[in-house]
Amino acid sequence: MNARVLSGRPVAAAIQSQLSADIDELLRQGKKRQLLIVAATDDPSSASYVRTLQRFGGQTGVTVTVADLGPDASEIDIRTVLETASADENVHGIILQTPLPDGASISGLGSAIAVEKDVDGANPASLTRLLAGEACFAPATAAAVVELLDHYEVGLAGRPISVVGRSLVVGKPLLHLLLNRDATVTVAHSRTADLAAATGTAAVVVAAAGRAGLIRAAHVAQGSVVIDVGTNFDDAGALVGDVEAGSVGAVAAALSPVPGGVGAVTTALLFRNTVYGLPDPSGSPSLPAAAGAVL
Amino acid sequence: MNARVLSGRPVAAAIQSQLSADIDELLRQGKKRQLLIVAATDDPSSASYVRTLQRFGGQTGVTVTVADLGPDASEIDIRTVLETASADENVHGIILQTPLPDGASISGLGSAIAVEKDVDGANPASLTRLLAGEACFAPATAAAVVELLDHYEVGLAGRPISVVGRSLVVGKPLLHLLLNRDATVTVAHSRTADLAAATGTAAVVVAAAGRAGLIRAAHVAQGSVVIDVGTNFDDAGALVGDVEAGSVGAVAAALSPVPGGVGAVTTALLFRNTVYGLPDPSGSPSLPAAAGAVL
Repeated sequence: MNARVLSGRPVAAAIQSQLSADIDELLRQGKKRQLLIVAATDDPSSASYVRTLQRFGGQTGVTVTVADLGPDASEIDIRTVLETASADENVHGIILQTPLPDGASISGLGSAIAVEKDVDGANPASLTRLLAGEACFAPATAAAVVELLDHYEVGLAGRPISVVGRSLVVGKPLLHLLLNRDATVTVAHSRTADLAAATGTAAVVVAAAGRAGLIRAAHVAQGSVVIDVGTNFDDAGALVGDVEAGSVGAVAAALSPVPGGVGAVTTALLFRNTVYGLPDPSGSPSLPAAAGAVL
Repeated sequence: MNARVLSGRPVAAAIQSQLSADIDELLRQGKKRQLLIVAATDDPSSASYVRTLQRFGGQTGVTVTVADLGPDASEIDIRTVLETASADENVHGIILQTPLPDGASISGLGSAIAVEKDVDGANPASLTRLLAGEACFAPATAAAVVELLDHYEVGLAGRPISVVGRSLVVGKPLLHLLLNRDATVTVAHSRTADLAAATGTAAVVVAAAGRAGLIRAAHVAQGSVVIDVGTNFDDAGALVGDVEAGSVGAVAAALSPVPGGVGAVTTALLFRNTVYGLPDPSGSPSLPAAAGAVL
């Protein structure tokens, strides 16, 4: 593997360091920041992620509260908790964990989360704002891709970027985040007839299709930047992305791996959103769009 | 020019013919269909378009009513009319004309149009539904592009399609209409560094940037299908599209011109939406996605 590894850890650490300093100052002023996690599941991977969030909160000084409604909660129960938290001035960010109980849908319940506290972009109104270029939170995984590209000074404006995957939580919001940053965006997916044609000339390829080994050397241009957003599990139960890292790493200039890539950045962004609130309509990139392409 | 001309007129005529027959039957049952146009402008091009809609309504048997509020109407006045019409069971479609008076915004007022009567997709909630693949009306110009491609049996599923332009009324909704039909979609725009690279290998190029002469022969593949959605006016005041028809027509297999292309289809779709109501979530293509590529 010749590609530079674009690790998410220093990106997350930079965010965490800034957050810790600012939270210390807020606490000195008597101002707490609270992230509420609403869970209605006994799924072990949800529980594991909740622990990750609690650990990050403990390290940064953000209060993390879990409303554990159990796997039998009704949609009305969940909605009531979300609406109450939306109106509670002591709650600054709200996350609704999945999976949800049978009959409850994330799109239906997301609308109960106030847009200015919707730190993971679950409210359809947040997506509408994203399309219109208005202040909003995008789903954190999609935002983490842009954050990681910014951190490593990968230019976006004017450049061809291919997103593989069209989910409502990653591919579609990411497409609009990239368009808002003036990238030329191609969206490929499971029905794309010629995947290599859709990705092979892109300066940046983002793999978010949810299929292990989908992106191989033949799919990426020499010298391109490849961001793996896949979360798949191999036969041994290990987390693997969508990118065949060995072969792609020999062609690409840089590769963000799974694990160790966007995942950690996603977590950090949920907290940054909780602490600082809605970004300005430009999406407040950590670098100006004109910063140019280092990679 | 060797390219086949993809005229909008037979597409509109086919829709109008179906509508007329169905309206006759509805009228026999004592059921009228009414399209309400809300105008708050003395702009002559708005007045001209209103006359076009009235003529189409007269030919098909759909009642077209104009609420002319004048250019000094307040945002609250306009909103009240939209809300009243949304609740009126005798109104089946609502269009809000632009331009709007100073201080009033289409995105703010669009939300006052009931989603099931929002025949031109002006309510942000309609766009949200489009992204989620739910039943909705897309902005009629974007929907007209897909209608025209379907009419001429141009295959969409799996194929590379480039949209030039990223406006909230054409480029962005069209991108999602095409994604919902399984196309591989590239969005290029004014900041795209290499436009020919973004469009030159596409099976279909849709020009919706609003810049006369933007798309020339060098931008399109031999044998491609080119749809012009531009509405610009040349020095003599004549309507011209974004495509340099002479040079592009020598390379492309087919070209939908301006004038004579999607415009007439757009008008017909506003009436089809008014008469039949919300389409099913698949977007009710007039051809199945699997119909294959005739062009």
